[in-house]
Amino acid sequence: MTAKAHVQRVVGTGAEEAAPRVGVVGGGQLARMMQEAAIPLGIQLHALVEAADGASGQVIPNSQVGDADDSAAVCALAERVDVLTVEHEHVPDEILAAAGELAPVRPGSHALAYAQDKLLMREKMEELGAPVPRWWRVNSEQEIQAGLAELGGRGVLKTPRDGYDGKGVRIIAEASEARDWLADGGPLLLEEMIPFEFEVAAVLARRPSGEVACWPVVRTVQQQGACFEVVAPAPGVGPELEGQIQDIAVKIAEDLDVVGILAVEMFVGSNGGEASASGAPALQPYVNELAMRPHNSAHWTIEGADTSQFEQHLRAVLDLPLGSTLPLRDWSVMVNVLGSELDDPREAYQQVMEKYPRAKIHMYGKEVKPRRKIGHVTVVGDDLDEALAQSHGAAAMLRGEV
Amino acid sequence: MTAKAHVQRVVGTGAEEAAPRVGVVGGGQLARMMQEAAIPLGIQLHALVEAADGASGQVIPNSQVGDADDSAAVCALAERVDVLTVEHEHVPDEILAAAGELAPVRPGSHALAYAQDKLLMREKMEELGAPVPRWWRVNSEQEIQAGLAELGGRGVLKTPRDGYDGKGVRIIAEASEARDWLADGGPLLLEEMIPFEFEVAAVLARRPSGEVACWPVVRTVQQQGACFEVVAPAPGVGPELEGQIQDIAVKIAEDLDVVGILAVEMFVGSNGGEASASGAPALQPYVNELAMRPHNSAHWTIEGADTSQFEQHLRAVLDLPLGSTLPLRDWSVMVNVLGSELDDPREAYQQVMEKYPRAKIHMYGKEVKPRRKIGHVTVVGDDLDEALAQSHGAAAMLRGEV
Repeated sequence: MTAKAHVQRVVGTGAEEAAPRVGVVGGGQLARMMQEAAIPLGIQLHALVEAADGASGQVIPNSQVGDADDSAAVCALAERVDVLTVEHEHVPDEILAAAGELAPVRPGSHALAYAQDKLLMREKMEELGAPVPRWWRVNSEQEIQAGLAELGGRGVLKTPRDGYDGKGVRIIAEASEARDWLADGGPLLLEEMIPFEFEVAAVLARRPSGEVACWPVVRTVQQQGACFEVVAPAPGVGPELEGQIQDIAVKIAEDLDVVGILAVEMFVGSNGGEASASGAPALQPYVNELAMRPHNSAHWTIEGADTSQFEQHLRAVLDLPLGSTLPLRDWSVMVNVLGSELDDPREAYQQVMEKYPRAKIHMYGKEVKPRRKIGHVTVVGDDLDEALAQSHGAAAMLRGEV
Repeated sequence: MTAKAHVQRVVGTGAEEAAPRVGVVGGGQLARMMQEAAIPLGIQLHALVEAADGASGQVIPNSQVGDADDSAAVCALAERVDVLTVEHEHVPDEILAAAGELAPVRPGSHALAYAQDKLLMREKMEELGAPVPRWWRVNSEQEIQAGLAELGGRGVLKTPRDGYDGKGVRIIAEASEARDWLADGGPLLLEEMIPFEFEVAAVLARRPSGEVACWPVVRTVQQQGACFEVVAPAPGVGPELEGQIQDIAVKIAEDLDVVGILAVEMFVGSNGGEASASGAPALQPYVNELAMRPHNSAHWTIEGADTSQFEQHLRAVLDLPLGSTLPLRDWSVMVNVLGSELDDPREAYQQVMEKYPRAKIHMYGKEVKPRRKIGHVTVVGDDLDEALAQSHGAAAMLRGEV
């Protein structure tokens, strides 16, 4: 009496052998979202992850557990793939060099160096003529005190390497506040605190053949040093300023030979009262940070643009033609879920889906910890206020605040 | 000299234990695309697949190899999940009943029966007052000949079960053409060949609590019995006709207690010259087929609507509130890739991505066979002609025809 199952059988296909293979070092949400983009394109992702049940280990069948600073593990990954990429900038140079003997590493370590080291980056930006805040390489309390004096008593101190989401950054008024970092050795970066009007990010992709594609410049809002809200396109940024910002980002990508996604975070400040032709106070962008990987400021592209940054990154590192970066609707708003009062934010699904049927929820499969990036929400639409209200409302529910 | 890897570690999270778990029977492209929707929501998909390296086995880490008609395998899957769903309608009833003791099966076998058996479905449609082509249950050449005489000599003969993509369907003019099927035993379905103007599909989702959400009605074009092109929304279908078509689909969903996606394929014919208020010839829909799973006619929703049918199916079977079904742009066009001249259509990526930067490519990781559904392409935009040209152009390149 059983009906014979007449499903189309997919046995011993050989289709898997023909798949383009991309290796990614890192097991967090970026590799997870790369996998979402890899599946429709039939690209096989291989990942070196911190834990089999981590954010990307959960969803990438070809995952191996290992550390980003374990040369043997990174090289074993490189051997299995057509091209190797990274989810973060913290893979040691000599390991990237060793892996590069086995498969192309994109972006290459010659580019990644500028995303790893803020002092190197500041020097390079000056060399390129990209506007940056005033800055000093400082090795002692005396040097810091001298810099602070020039800055009117207050400045931003940064460790050149390994900072992220507000870590490795201090606003200081006294050189003594740098004592512990100075004790760790090595130079620090002291810079002017830009009294910015707002912050923006220019995100683009570049492939080895040189093709570059930019998404619209976005406005970013930080909260305690971590990205909190992104609005695309950036309100208050007209075509002239957007062109200026994108030109800076393209120049950086080309000069540094970046392959894959490049995100350039910038402050936009008033330009000392000089007015533009329109009579509005002129706005001046200053390069703050570089990232050479899919970036939080472009998560909105998953739903909001023809091509997501994750798909684009895969295309770029495989040297495939880049996809259209046109936005699908007038506005996209992305809000991060930074920690939660709930043991598991999925407990709020009933409530949040009921109230916000247009909210696109992304949870990273990560354990909740205070202020940890555990997910994000995107809303696209033609009404900015509504998109802001819905995305913030949904994120607040996932944080257990409503 | 090595920089310490300061990545956010995701070790022993416990986040996986808390994930909602959905089991799916079937290892084809529908489960593959369900996985694309499951990842962002942090839903853990478990699949019973035909092959570990098949379309969904490749991308669902929690896959087990087994047959849809192996009761022990289906029950083992049910034991591991919160809810069980199916990718096709061919799981035997008694196996669904056994699995239903272990986890809710959605849609239930009481609903699936009408998607499994075309005779049962035709009877039910008549009972509901849904318009259908004239039809007969036939057991012999005599009965077929009598039906054909009433139909003016030509009709459509169908096996009640296990047909798909044009299989199990014949246009006949002589009862003798049914001899082999009659020899297999069991009644057949003979029906009128509707001289349709075009074909449409109404696709909706329904959850156990009763909530229903419809996407816009789409126009479908078949080629040798398989879906070839889908345009959303359906050109030539005004609000009145769309309402009538959606009402039929909602009535079916509610009366049959469907949970998950329901696709109702319909012919739209001219209504015997009776004109509508506008003076145009009145159009009459006729129910052709039902499917109770994500359906080819709604693949466009992945890029073209706020909520994709795959996300919606997961929401529905988990009894979560349904997402918005609003389209993102004026038009979405989906074209299937049915077979290819290329050994692997990914060989065409360089060419197709260069020429069609807005085309969204979906390849299913399946070996190429003649006319097999191995992928699809979607283009969304505000110009229908352009979306048609781009989607067909891209699909033709993937088929190796350009």
